Amino acid sequence: MSVDRTRMRWNGWGWAAHKDIVAPREELWTWLAAELGMPALLATPARPLEELTLPASKLSAPDRTALNAIVGEENVRETAFERAFHALGRSYHDLLRLRAGDLSTAPDAVVYPRGTEEVLAVLALAAKQRIAVVPFGGGTSAVGGVSGTRGPFDTVITLDMSAMNRLIDIDPVSRTATAEAGINGPALEKALREKGFTLGHMPDSFEFSTLGGWIAQRDAGATDWLVVAKLATPRGLLSTGDFPASAAGVQMKDIVAGSEGMFGVITEAVVRLHKLPQMSDCRAWLFRDFESGAAAIRTAMQEGIACSTLFLSDAEETRFQRASHTLGKTPGIVQWLVAKYFKLRGYDKLPCKLAAVFEGDERIASFERDRFRAVARKHGALSLGRGAGEQWRKTRFQAPYFRDTLLDRGVGIDMVETAASWSKLEALHAGVQAALEAAIREAVPREGARGLVMCRMAHASPQGASLCFTVVFPRLLDGDIEQWRRIKNAAVEAVLANGGTLSHHLGVGQDHLPWIAQEKGQLGIDVLRAVKAALDPEGILNPGKLLP
Amino acid sequence: MSVDRTRMRWNGWGWAAHKDIVAPREELWTWLAAELGMPALLATPARPLEELTLPASKLSAPDRTALNAIVGEENVRETAFERAFHALGRSYHDLLRLRAGDLSTAPDAVVYPRGTEEVLAVLALAAKQRIAVVPFGGGTSAVGGVSGTRGPFDTVITLDMSAMNRLIDIDPVSRTATAEAGINGPALEKALREKGFTLGHMPDSFEFSTLGGWIAQRDAGATDWLVVAKLATPRGLLSTGDFPASAAGVQMKDIVAGSEGMFGVITEAVVRLHKLPQMSDCRAWLFRDFESGAAAIRTAMQEGIACSTLFLSDAEETRFQRASHTLGKTPGIVQWLVAKYFKLRGYDKLPCKLAAVFEGDERIASFERDRFRAVARKHGALSLGRGAGEQWRKTRFQAPYFRDTLLDRGVGIDMVETAASWSKLEALHAGVQAALEAAIREAVPREGARGLVMCRMAHASPQGASLCFTVVFPRLLDGDIEQWRRIKNAAVEAVLANGGTLSHHLGVGQDHLPWIAQEKGQLGIDVLRAVKAALDPEGILNPGKLLP
Repeated sequence: MSVDRTRMRWNGWGWAAHKDIVAPREELWTWLAAELGMPALLATPARPLEELTLPASKLSAPDRTALNAIVGEENVRETAFERAFHALGRSYHDLLRLRAGDLSTAPDAVVYPRGTEEVLAVLALAAKQRIAVVPFGGGTSAVGGVSGTRGPFDTVITLDMSAMNRLIDIDPVSRTATAEAGINGPALEKALREKGFTLGHMPDSFEFSTLGGWIAQRDAGATDWLVVAKLATPRGLLSTGDFPASAAGVQMKDIVAGSEGMFGVITEAVVRLHKLPQMSDCRAWLFRDFESGAAAIRTAMQEGIACSTLFLSDAEETRFQRASHTLGKTPGIVQWLVAKYFKLRGYDKLPCKLAAVFEGDERIASFERDRFRAVARKHGALSLGRGAGEQWRKTRFQAPYFRDTLLDRGVGIDMVETAASWSKLEALHAGVQAALEAAIREAVPREGARGLVMCRMAHASPQGASLCFTVVFPRLLDGDIEQWRRIKNAAVEAVLANGGTLSHHLGVGQDHLPWIAQEKGQLGIDVLRAVKAALDPEGILNPGKLLP
Repeated sequence: MSVDRTRMRWNGWGWAAHKDIVAPREELWTWLAAELGMPALLATPARPLEELTLPASKLSAPDRTALNAIVGEENVRETAFERAFHALGRSYHDLLRLRAGDLSTAPDAVVYPRGTEEVLAVLALAAKQRIAVVPFGGGTSAVGGVSGTRGPFDTVITLDMSAMNRLIDIDPVSRTATAEAGINGPALEKALREKGFTLGHMPDSFEFSTLGGWIAQRDAGATDWLVVAKLATPRGLLSTGDFPASAAGVQMKDIVAGSEGMFGVITEAVVRLHKLPQMSDCRAWLFRDFESGAAAIRTAMQEGIACSTLFLSDAEETRFQRASHTLGKTPGIVQWLVAKYFKLRGYDKLPCKLAAVFEGDERIASFERDRFRAVARKHGALSLGRGAGEQWRKTRFQAPYFRDTLLDRGVGIDMVETAASWSKLEALHAGVQAALEAAIREAVPREGARGLVMCRMAHASPQGASLCFTVVFPRLLDGDIEQWRRIKNAAVEAVLANGGTLSHHLGVGQDHLPWIAQEKGQLGIDVLRAVKAALDPEGILNPGKLLP
């Protein structure tokens, strides 16, 4: 079943009916106001769609007729809601514009294809008629990857892939599955789990983002599990080879992963599966500081300890999480004793929480958990047991909703994510943290106001790991886009200066465009332009993203 | 220290002084003649270089002067030996031509650059002067990847990278090493082992092939350990990002891996290292047939059992190896008893030998070995213990020498390698085996003559594995190139018809050129051509390889 877009927020995250558990807790807002150096946090509601006027659709009558003939009339939609919903993605920058009622990037129409042949036909038509096409999976891009920008074209349509959401086939022998690219996280996992398998790819956007989006965005790990991609281009279908490995020249799937809708529309993919684990054991530890936690992760990775998930919150994130869970609750005698014990053992200064998940059959998962426990102990960690570890599982997909709640109360929140080799990570962490703190200080609404800068280390490998910074700051209501831009610029400059990549899992889109040439080099950009010209000679696909 | 080319065979494998242990064993030749249905195997020596006349070098005096100015006079070489040595790679097809004295692809000069800047300068000169450039690592290409073909150009030079052989740096924290691309297997491993690390990449060509060659050829696994590549192109240096992972668009290293010298010359690379294992335990098992051995490998991979090497010989390869080791030796009472025991247990029909290496610290390696042992037992295997497993380690780099020895006695030997998903492997194995047997039968020198077709499964993953076929056949002395072509064609057609890739680790070069468009599709070829045009607009690099 396709996602019903009308039940979703056109200018925020997820389901319209979702009730945020945080919003009503006034003691949290009081605490947050104090943390941010603000006297109070006032209501700052978004503008409702009814107040807004969209630019008239520029889709010509003959083009509309032609599109109707390809996908059926009911799948070419031009209502205000459809166009507004597809105007932008869900980056902080996008939300600021949507909430302010800026619908200048609304596409002229939204087209819902039902199969690869229809996508090919729409692209051929668009190339002939010079209509820009924006591929759209879950629309959750956090970097401006699905904005309805029209580039040099008069007309732009968005291709919403959510009707192409079938699991086509499972090969239990090779442990692979073939699925349409518009399938979203829950639908894919449900279908796989019924057969005893899992893909195990669970980004924060999991509830809404799609298989095709994960691949196009080159989401962390996508290149590990991608076997085959079908890419519909204006010049026809590019199907990459179905092999476990190949030395037959450069592999086309490597050109599809990270293509961000610039070279074609991913319509189908074959992915590697894991057997659904017998056991999934989530544990937490407390480290005295970020460095010792990071050292434990590095050791575990380099010794080949198998964790399916492993992340470390820095002191500020650990403190923030603890506060948001305990505020307004009277601590019992147990909590009081625990706090005393932590203090006694020296875990009261800058304690950092690490969570790890061990999966597999009972014996293997226990073996790996014991290996990790020994490493954690060696690096001075205190075990928090299973409960603290399980907590993040319950709330992991709530975070994007929380952003809307904060925005409603004059608080901004954004993420900056990167990755680097182990030898660079400490300086990268310090450099980006300092840059973010300074940039926020220079762009707050009143003297004495400040931001929270938190960081999480994840996606570790023997060679390095990702760092994901979350910044929370009081919005500069009369200039919040400029405020965001200053914070973003400072962060990215610090990332690049310290040897991090522009993005570890969110992609380039529009938000990272100013820096992509710096990361790729001019020859790299020339290569990507050449590939685009070979597959999309008219340049109709996703104008204004990835390539400067 | 650079490899001394003059101590190597210009028309065969490796060191000129190498003494093959097989050649003098007449009982082996008698046995092989009978196996191949031949009355005897006669001497068929190669033509010596002294007999041959090379075409005159077409390098112009001003170009020679310009090259001398870049790399120094002593590094621009035009002797008959240098030109003959670099005329072709070391595929069976190449050896037939070299042995017959065909030096039509000898380059006009061989240039030995000493650093990235020199490579860039040579390429800029060559682009300006319209000189074809063939990048050359160890020259061990088994698919015609380094032939001195000049394409549309009057002059062709070979860029021998063997002087660029330094290990530049080791980062023990991130477990990576930076090395010049011309470093060969033994030199790289020696330098790494001194610091307690290993890359662990050991193809059959290990003794001579180079880091740059492994990457250019997209050798099995190269994409797992490659972090950064520096590619010198006629338009300047393309340096890929130094990140453990990145979502910042298509990754340039994926375009370098498998580029086969068509886009530029790899001059440096950063690679992932492993800690030198405390223990490396090689074990062997005997399976009743290929299917049960394959099932054991698949189970092991899908359960995540960590083996650093794992391969399974089919019945014919197992028989051939046993014969070549035991022929002419009187079996002792122990061997006799073992043979009786095997027969009793049912391992005398089509027994297949599996070898596996377990590495790491004592505890981990034993744990993984025990897990594998349980899987092997479940699939009916008989343990052969450690001795049988260690045997292949001692002789693994001897195989390419053995090819020369066979060619000297009128016997041909070639390899066909591919990979496929588990669900396709059984049919692929049967299909290629049948095609090879039929093709050899149709192209033998006398009635009743036949070939041996052996197969090995290796490089397994949860999704699939590679199959490497070795064919041994009596040479058709008056038409051995045509004989090879018929065998090769039959094999590749069967590979593609059964869902295998054109190559799992040897690459495309010239030998697989007729089929590359079938594997990549026309759009895929267009993409590769576009990348080439962006980096090598004059098309001077490695004419006639990879792209039809």
